[in-house]
Amino acid sequence: MIEERLAELGIELPPAPAPVAAYVPVRLGAGLAFVAGQIPDGGKLHPGHLGAEVTVEQGREAARVCALQALSALRAALGSLDRVRGILKVDVFVASAPGFTEQPQVANGASDVLVEIFGEAGQHARAAVGVAELPLGACVEVALTAEVA
Amino acid sequence: MIEERLAELGIELPPAPAPVAAYVPVRLGAGLAFVAGQIPDGGKLHPGHLGAEVTVEQGREAARVCALQALSALRAALGSLDRVRGILKVDVFVASAPGFTEQPQVANGASDVLVEIFGEAGQHARAAVGVAELPLGACVEVALTAEVA
Amino acid sequence: MIEERLAELGIELPPAPAPVAAYVPVRLGAGLAFVAGQIPDGGKLHPGHLGAEVTVEQGREAARVCALQALSALRAALGSLDRVRGILKVDVFVASAPGFTEQPQVANGASDVLVEIFGEAGQHARAAVGVAELPLGACVEVALTAEVA
Repeated sequence: MIEERLAELGIELPPAPAPVAAYVPVRLGAGLAFVAGQIPDGGKLHPGHLGAEVTVEQGREAARVCALQALSALRAALGSLDRVRGILKVDVFVASAPGFTEQPQVANGASDVLVEIFGEAGQHARAAVGVAELPLGACVEVALTAEVA
Repeated sequence: MIEERLAELGIELPPAPAPVAAYVPVRLGAGLAFVAGQIPDGGKLHPGHLGAEVTVEQGREAARVCALQALSALRAALGSLDRVRGILKVDVFVASAPGFTEQPQVANGASDVLVEIFGEAGQHARAAVGVAELPLGACVEVALTAEVA
Repeated sequence: MIEERLAELGIELPPAPAPVAAYVPVRLGAGLAFVAGQIPDGGKLHPGHLGAEVTVEQGREAARVCALQALSALRAALGSLDRVRGILKVDVFVASAPGFTEQPQVANGASDVLVEIFGEAGQHARAAVGVAELPLGACVEVALTAEVA
C-alpha cells in the first residue's frame, strides 16, 4: 500500500545509502527500527549553514531528501515499507549560523513528506535543533525511529 | 496517584502545547511515548544563550518548564499521567555561547522536577549538550521518552 | 561470552560512571536500555574542540573511551554484558570549531569498539553531529540505546 502511495504521489525514493564503516543504515530491535542520521545526497545538496549560504527553502528541500533517504534505507532493511507501522520520532539537526532560529521550518521538509506518504501513521514527535557543524558540510541531518511489524 | 502528587507539590502543569504543523506533541508505539522537543513558553521564557544573556538559574527554570510542558502533553495524549510507567530518557539541548560548559546544571531543572513528581520511576538516562541555536531563540529544548502502560 | 571477548581483546572497561544528581547512568524499560551521554574521563581526556585544539585521532580515542564507559555502566546495571542483545543506536555529539566536518571519523572511535566487542550484534544506527559546547569542556559525548534480554 505504501508503495502504491509513493507511486500516486510520484515520489521515487533515492538509492538507499550505503553502509558506512562500523555503523549500519538501519537497526531493528524491540519492535523498533532506528534509522541512522541522513545527510542529503552525501552532503552535496545545499551544503553550508542556514542563516548564511543556505536559504530556508533550500534547507526544507534538503530535509525532505533526508527523509526520503531514510525511507529508502528502511525499505532496503525491511523488504517493504508496508512493514512500517508508524514513524515515532524524527530528530532534525540544522547547521545554523548565529541568529538563525527557524529550525522548525526546515524540519517541516522532512515531517511533511512523511505524513504525505504514511498519513496518520506518519505523524511523529520531533526535535529540531541548530548545531554548529554537520558531517561533510551538510546543511541538515535527519534521524528517525519507526515502529515495525 | 501522580495527579495527587502534583497537587501535593503544588505544581500545576502548563497548557499542553498545541500540535504544530506535521508533527505531533506525543507519539505512542512499542510501549513507549516519544514527546516532541519542548521550548519554554514558545521560546519566550528567558530567550538567548547560556553564557551570554541567560544565567544558569534562568536556564534551569526554563528546563523545568519544558519538562512540565512535556508532562502536560503526555497527560493530554494518555488521559492520565498514571499510565506513565517511567521516564526513560531525557534529551536536553542548551543554546550555548562559546565557553559555556554547564549544560548539566541547566538540564537538572528538567531532571529534578521529573524525579520530584514520579519518584524512582522518574529517574532517567540523559544527554545534555550545548547547541548553536534553538527554535524561536529559545535557551533550552527538552525532549523525552517514557514507558507507558 | 562478552566478558571473555573483552579479555580476548585485552580491553578492561573503565569504572562505571557515578550516578550524577537526578539522572542515572542507565535506565531500563520496554526491552531497551538507555545509557546516559558519556563524556571521556569526566571531560578530562582531550578537552576542547575538534578543528581547534583536539585532533581527529584524539577525538576518536575519546569517543572510544566514552563507548567503553557506556558499556561499563551497562554492565553495572545489568549484572553482565551477556544480557545485551544488541546495540541499536549511538548518538555522538562532537564539540566542533567552525569548519570542522569530520564528525563521522571521530564517531568511528565509538562504533568500531562496539563492533569489535559485540560483533554483528554491535552494529548500530548512528547520528553524529557537531555541537557548540559540551559539559565540562569535553570534546565528545556519546549516548547509546541497547536491546536487552
